[in-house]
Amino acid sequence: MLRLFRYNWMVRDEWFEVFGAISEEELLRERTGGVGSILKTLFHIVDVECSWIRVIKGEPDPEPDFNDFASLDKVRQLSAQYRIEVEDFLTHWTSESDGEPVAPSGTEETFTQGEILRHVIAHEIHHVGQLSVWAKELGLRAVTANFIRRGL
Amino acid sequence: MLRLFRYNWMVRDEWFEVFGAISEEELLRERTGGVGSILKTLFHIVDVECSWIRVIKGEPDPEPDFNDFASLDKVRQLSAQYRIEVEDFLTHWTSESDGEPVAPSGTEETFTQGEILRHVIAHEIHHVGQLSVWAKELGLRAVTANFIRRGL
Repeated sequence: MLRLFRYNWMVRDEWFEVFGAISEEELLRERTGGVGSILKTLFHIVDVECSWIRVIKGEPDPEPDFNDFASLDKVRQLSAQYRIEVEDFLTHWTSESDGEPVAPSGTEETFTQGEILRHVIAHEIHHVGQLSVWAKELGLRAVTANFIRRGL
Repeated sequence: MLRLFRYNWMVRDEWFEVFGAISEEELLRERTGGVGSILKTLFHIVDVECSWIRVIKGEPDPEPDFNDFASLDKVRQLSAQYRIEVEDFLTHWTSESDGEPVAPSGTEETFTQGEILRHVIAHEIHHVGQLSVWAKELGLRAVTANFIRRGL
């Protein structure tokens, strides 16, 4: 499981680099699909990953407000900050917990730990696919989505 | 590993349904990003998945030609046909083979089985993210990318 998270982090960092080349106006421009703008999508990826890990841990959602992080550098810093916590959780996680039930507070639903982790993995790759279309529209080079050839 | 493949197949089938609502002209229209058109992207997903499984099995690549499958129904049929083989391979696959080396013929590179399987999983989710942007541009409803709430 950790390897797919590491893949996502590697790809995410490469997108932070690529999007460093465009203006804040372009980063914040509303676009069709996804959660709106490039920056909102990056923020959403970072936010959702940490939120779900907190759900598994039974800890409160940090609930960051996008308006407090509306620049590429701030989202990048938030990503780095949350990653320490997420990586710590995942390096101690084993597949024995795959089927462990998780009941998020405030809902009637239950999931399993493995289900949530796969959800988080797919969530980021999906949104990155959206970013890749927007990047091409802006004439930027797209970060490769390859899992192979990354030493993972 | 199988669960993420099953997720991809479920999502793929839902996209086949959604794209059944638009004309062949729209399906074939060249778009920015990805591998070009909606239909080429769906074909590419199906093609690449089977190709990599064949690489692991040490069997020849079927190498279907897009021109022979340039309709939604034909790509859907190809997807169903290949899935039988891919699913058969995966249901017999165990994590003990994760680190098994794979050397595709005609290259100097080597991968591991687990690396290739994760690559195939990420490959489809990434391209589906692109499809979701194009679908929104066409006013279609996007298939949910959720892994949760699918009974997987």
